[in-house]
Amino acid sequence: MHGQSHSMLKALVGDEAVGAFFSDEAELSALLEVEAALAAAQAGAGLIGREAAQRIAEACRGFRPDWDGLARGLAQDGVIVPAFVKQLRAAVGKPHDKAVHLGATSQDIIDTALVLRLKGIIAILEERMADLISALRDLRARDGAVRLIAHTRMQQALPFTGADKIDTWLQPLERHAENLEALAPRLLVVQLGGPIGTRHELKDRGGAVADAMAEVLGLGSGPSWHSQRDRIGEFGAFLSLLSGTLGKLGQDVALMAQNEMGEARLAAGGGSSAMPHKSNPVQAEVLVTLARFNAGLLGTLHQALVHENERSGAAWTLEWLVLPQMAESTAAGLSKAQALIAGMRFLPSSADEH
Amino acid sequence: MHGQSHSMLKALVGDEAVGAFFSDEAELSALLEVEAALAAAQAGAGLIGREAAQRIAEACRGFRPDWDGLARGLAQDGVIVPAFVKQLRAAVGKPHDKAVHLGATSQDIIDTALVLRLKGIIAILEERMADLISALRDLRARDGAVRLIAHTRMQQALPFTGADKIDTWLQPLERHAENLEALAPRLLVVQLGGPIGTRHELKDRGGAVADAMAEVLGLGSGPSWHSQRDRIGEFGAFLSLLSGTLGKLGQDVALMAQNEMGEARLAAGGGSSAMPHKSNPVQAEVLVTLARFNAGLLGTLHQALVHENERSGAAWTLEWLVLPQMAESTAAGLSKAQALIAGMRFLPSSADEH
Amino acid sequence: MHGQSHSMLKALVGDEAVGAFFSDEAELSALLEVEAALAAAQAGAGLIGREAAQRIAEACRGFRPDWDGLARGLAQDGVIVPAFVKQLRAAVGKPHDKAVHLGATSQDIIDTALVLRLKGIIAILEERMADLISALRDLRARDGAVRLIAHTRMQQALPFTGADKIDTWLQPLERHAENLEALAPRLLVVQLGGPIGTRHELKDRGGAVADAMAEVLGLGSGPSWHSQRDRIGEFGAFLSLLSGTLGKLGQDVALMAQNEMGEARLAAGGGSSAMPHKSNPVQAEVLVTLARFNAGLLGTLHQALVHENERSGAAWTLEWLVLPQMAESTAAGLSKAQALIAGMRFLPSSADEH
Amino acid sequence: MHGQSHSMLKALVGDEAVGAFFSDEAELSALLEVEAALAAAQAGAGLIGREAAQRIAEACRGFRPDWDGLARGLAQDGVIVPAFVKQLRAAVGKPHDKAVHLGATSQDIIDTALVLRLKGIIAILEERMADLISALRDLRARDGAVRLIAHTRMQQALPFTGADKIDTWLQPLERHAENLEALAPRLLVVQLGGPIGTRHELKDRGGAVADAMAEVLGLGSGPSWHSQRDRIGEFGAFLSLLSGTLGKLGQDVALMAQNEMGEARLAAGGGSSAMPHKSNPVQAEVLVTLARFNAGLLGTLHQALVHENERSGAAWTLEWLVLPQMAESTAAGLSKAQALIAGMRFLPSSADEH
Repeated sequence: MHGQSHSMLKALVGDEAVGAFFSDEAELSALLEVEAALAAAQAGAGLIGREAAQRIAEACRGFRPDWDGLARGLAQDGVIVPAFVKQLRAAVGKPHDKAVHLGATSQDIIDTALVLRLKGIIAILEERMADLISALRDLRARDGAVRLIAHTRMQQALPFTGADKIDTWLQPLERHAENLEALAPRLLVVQLGGPIGTRHELKDRGGAVADAMAEVLGLGSGPSWHSQRDRIGEFGAFLSLLSGTLGKLGQDVALMAQNEMGEARLAAGGGSSAMPHKSNPVQAEVLVTLARFNAGLLGTLHQALVHENERSGAAWTLEWLVLPQMAESTAAGLSKAQALIAGMRFLPSSADEH
Repeated sequence: MHGQSHSMLKALVGDEAVGAFFSDEAELSALLEVEAALAAAQAGAGLIGREAAQRIAEACRGFRPDWDGLARGLAQDGVIVPAFVKQLRAAVGKPHDKAVHLGATSQDIIDTALVLRLKGIIAILEERMADLISALRDLRARDGAVRLIAHTRMQQALPFTGADKIDTWLQPLERHAENLEALAPRLLVVQLGGPIGTRHELKDRGGAVADAMAEVLGLGSGPSWHSQRDRIGEFGAFLSLLSGTLGKLGQDVALMAQNEMGEARLAAGGGSSAMPHKSNPVQAEVLVTLARFNAGLLGTLHQALVHENERSGAAWTLEWLVLPQMAESTAAGLSKAQALIAGMRFLPSSADEH
Repeated sequence: MHGQSHSMLKALVGDEAVGAFFSDEAELSALLEVEAALAAAQAGAGLIGREAAQRIAEACRGFRPDWDGLARGLAQDGVIVPAFVKQLRAAVGKPHDKAVHLGATSQDIIDTALVLRLKGIIAILEERMADLISALRDLRARDGAVRLIAHTRMQQALPFTGADKIDTWLQPLERHAENLEALAPRLLVVQLGGPIGTRHELKDRGGAVADAMAEVLGLGSGPSWHSQRDRIGEFGAFLSLLSGTLGKLGQDVALMAQNEMGEARLAAGGGSSAMPHKSNPVQAEVLVTLARFNAGLLGTLHQALVHENERSGAAWTLEWLVLPQMAESTAAGLSKAQALIAGMRFLPSSADEH
Repeated sequence: MHGQSHSMLKALVGDEAVGAFFSDEAELSALLEVEAALAAAQAGAGLIGREAAQRIAEACRGFRPDWDGLARGLAQDGVIVPAFVKQLRAAVGKPHDKAVHLGATSQDIIDTALVLRLKGIIAILEERMADLISALRDLRARDGAVRLIAHTRMQQALPFTGADKIDTWLQPLERHAENLEALAPRLLVVQLGGPIGTRHELKDRGGAVADAMAEVLGLGSGPSWHSQRDRIGEFGAFLSLLSGTLGKLGQDVALMAQNEMGEARLAAGGGSSAMPHKSNPVQAEVLVTLARFNAGLLGTLHQALVHENERSGAAWTLEWLVLPQMAESTAAGLSKAQALIAGMRFLPSSADEH
């Protein structure tokens, strides 16, 4: 949140590709996709007519929001959906407007639109993790034999090699990649429950509608989960774990690149406004920043697991403030790490020469 | 951070007035004000010529940034100042360009520009706290005699009054207002240290320059504090404490407004996309959200107290990600609370009637 | 940590069975088991003699610690192992004392002794999760048809049933149980790396020794992971997720048990020193406490993912302060939830009767 | 919490003096002191007889608890007071048993007993802060002229001196000491409110009783504050700020003491079980640990500011889990820092010699 304000800081810590999934436009586009999928699924289940579903799909494709109205609605209702559905119904027009959002509640649309976007984000994370793993393997192939000094408790321990160092970064990344593959199908599941999660309004067709929505949207299907936030919390934990691994990498590099240590040379050091001789390990530092940021945000996200009753405005809104930042920060970390590794050389420890 | 993306969510949880202090434009404007004040102070101390200071002031007033260049510089250097100073020197032109940013370092400009804006933010918070205190006193005057039931451990305890309830919200607010008054002069202090905080580059005039800058900028003066982040951490704690008090108020109101409790009627309930009969205590819920959000962010901000050496890129950047959100969330909470209180009536507890 | 002090508070929030794994005695016992397993494995690999391994096993079985010496060593070295190995070597005596702890480092012993105990803890958690799931199914069988009112955003929404409510507690628990099964083999892996994690001191027998240790200890085998803390962080996330699910259950019950709501009657309400008429939902409240506590601790545990170099004293010690509390709190939550569910009845919502 | 278990770890991260304030014995002793003070104050106000107050004082002095009964009561009621008052009444005996705890509630006794102990803890913190400030001034007097290299963003910046380095540790400590002096009178205030905080049971003598209790206990007096947790949150923030300053000091020293840096020599390095040549900066590392631990705990403590209604079992219990750890960790940090500084020498930077 609190964004516009900080567009420039994003040059340092943001990520355009993942950030784009959380723009107003991307959210609206996902909401429209979900409403259209709902209508299509309900037509298939005989809950609304085919014609209505087609008209809704059409209206979703051509929808032009009144942004101010949406913002006012969000401020008033605590969620954008009432205002959005009202606008969408107006766009659909008589007689099919009644078929819009039938038997669904805000959370069905918002949560499904969220996982829809998380699917795209996960694809980006997977790709970047693969790239980073590959870059680390390349670095290992090139500099793996360089003699370094291992440090334990901030003191010189014993000699080892670049390969040994890289392995401590690489192995957790390989685990993260595996774990994300296992986690994704748990997370990427349609939410459909109606006002209180019982699908009662869908008259025994709830399961069929959810299945059909899942099919259309490329998501999994399952019971309504909107008051069960464990999957969101689990994904947050994944993001923080990955950021933590990158933060360790960044901290290690910043320590190796100390002038006195001289075990790493970085391609792109940051300049100083006062000391032209300096070359700062900015990317490595930012990895530490993002790890600590995401760790803290994770602790906050898990506060939202205490999601009281059948819908908690307080807890749900807290997720909105936290999860997008975590996803974007994690993605930013992967890019920073990629650039850092791509431009880094290991240098033999001078300590080892003695 | 990560903003633009979420402009709409700001309608619910953001604050325009305080958010504006963290826009790129406001930050740049503060940077320019600080560079001009530095030049004026240095002219007064005889470190640069009067003419140079005038030329710098002029250039600052008319400065037109190359935003892309600033963003690139920020991404490269981890801080905007090197690119900014380069642009400003070009704008000043020969022969006075050398007088720009003389003996100063990035952190002098960034940190002073931060406290300059915190001064404006504190003024807003003070005003809103006063307004909220006043609104609570009005509510107390009107509904203070209403008979309510006190609840301890989520169970009915004994009858008491609206005034008793309001006092538990009012008294901490009065303390917060007092504490902010005591805290402000500690926080609102010029940062001037040069590259490593020693003011060595200012040749015994460091103190005089800092004093003169403080005079121009309406801030306090003192030794260089850039690697001492306790004041930032203290201000963050204040923001979280205030948000926590508002969160308690919000939680209380949400509980009182339960249909089964019926001790509070809210003017502006939020609507539901599925249940037209509902009137949701959205503002009260958001106060809880913001309290939990700021509490978590505070825990993260205090991680940045471990600010290693004479400047920690990792810790400093972490502050940038956290403090603006905390300030904006706190201000948003004050507005929400004001609107909530303004539109609330206490109703006699039905339990008390028996 | 900081315990003795608070033995009584443990009656409310502690768990004897899991807490016992973190007693000094249990830790020492695990350390001894690991040293004996190491010796046995090294004998099998021909690194030390069979006789030495037998003598070490014997000495481990009969070991009588000088506790004060261990505490002094821990305070001095930051880790108990140097003092412990010294005492153990003395107990083994000449000539086999040299064979103790051969080629191993503190972290090998401490981390393996940790996962050894986590194995026992996981077994307890699994059993309690199964019991709680079973208790929830029983409650569902008995009270599933009770008519309740669903509440969204703290307001009455629509009628539903006890079964609907219970499902929102049950389904995440079933997922947690599954996830723990998948997580356990990743976590429960011998740590063996020697001073800097390379197993260099074990002369190509590192893998064989680790495999044999794993066999003896009933753990998995794999490369040295001591500077890769993702599995610890992942387990912490599991604990917080589970606690969060229990916290939602507790919050729901505390809300249902409000006098005005009257949808849940609890067997064992807490008494008040001032109001004898009260019956407080203490267990439900404590579930909320433990969820928020563990969420916060998780954010702190993930700070320790930034484990610099080949061993971070700062980050590792932070884990010691956090993980035991998380494990014990989670186990306590499961017991509280079990007792709460066992003694709870759902009552038809009076609102529904109208 | 969760202690006994970890008595040995306390040798590394605990503090006996402050930890002792949180023992069961110390808590009981404070509870007794508060009940006796309440009785004395009520006798003075004519609410109970002088004789009753004398009998209660006597019984408090000679009180022998049934610890198991207290623990059972705590587990049942969520707070120890009901069981404690029952035992105390039995000890007082007829006819004065009715005069025990008259018009008071659990929270009056627990919260007043807490601030009573915080008073002692604050005295310890003040003394240790003064000692540490003095030790830093001594170090400055001896090694202040040593030539070091300042490091910004983990890179060599420019030469400066030991005095410059020490000033960045000393100045925040001086502010902390001042702030604690200002904070203490706000925090150290008797809590007296009766069941719901209105003092209704004390019949217009509430203020007089509170004043007299304050007089007896050496605390301040004011309105009931038990559902206003801002002062607890403010004290927590102080503890984390102080720990953060010590964490920065520790991180700086650990970096300076790197073999490659060689700017600090530590008296008492920790040993390694695998590498006899090592001298680990254990105390410096632990300062970083404690800073990060307390920062995280602060974020959790502030979650408890959302203290719903007239008493929140969930939020209050959360404080009990967090605040004692924070106080003990902060005190431990002061001792560690004292020992670290007392045994440290600054060495001229070898980089500066070139």
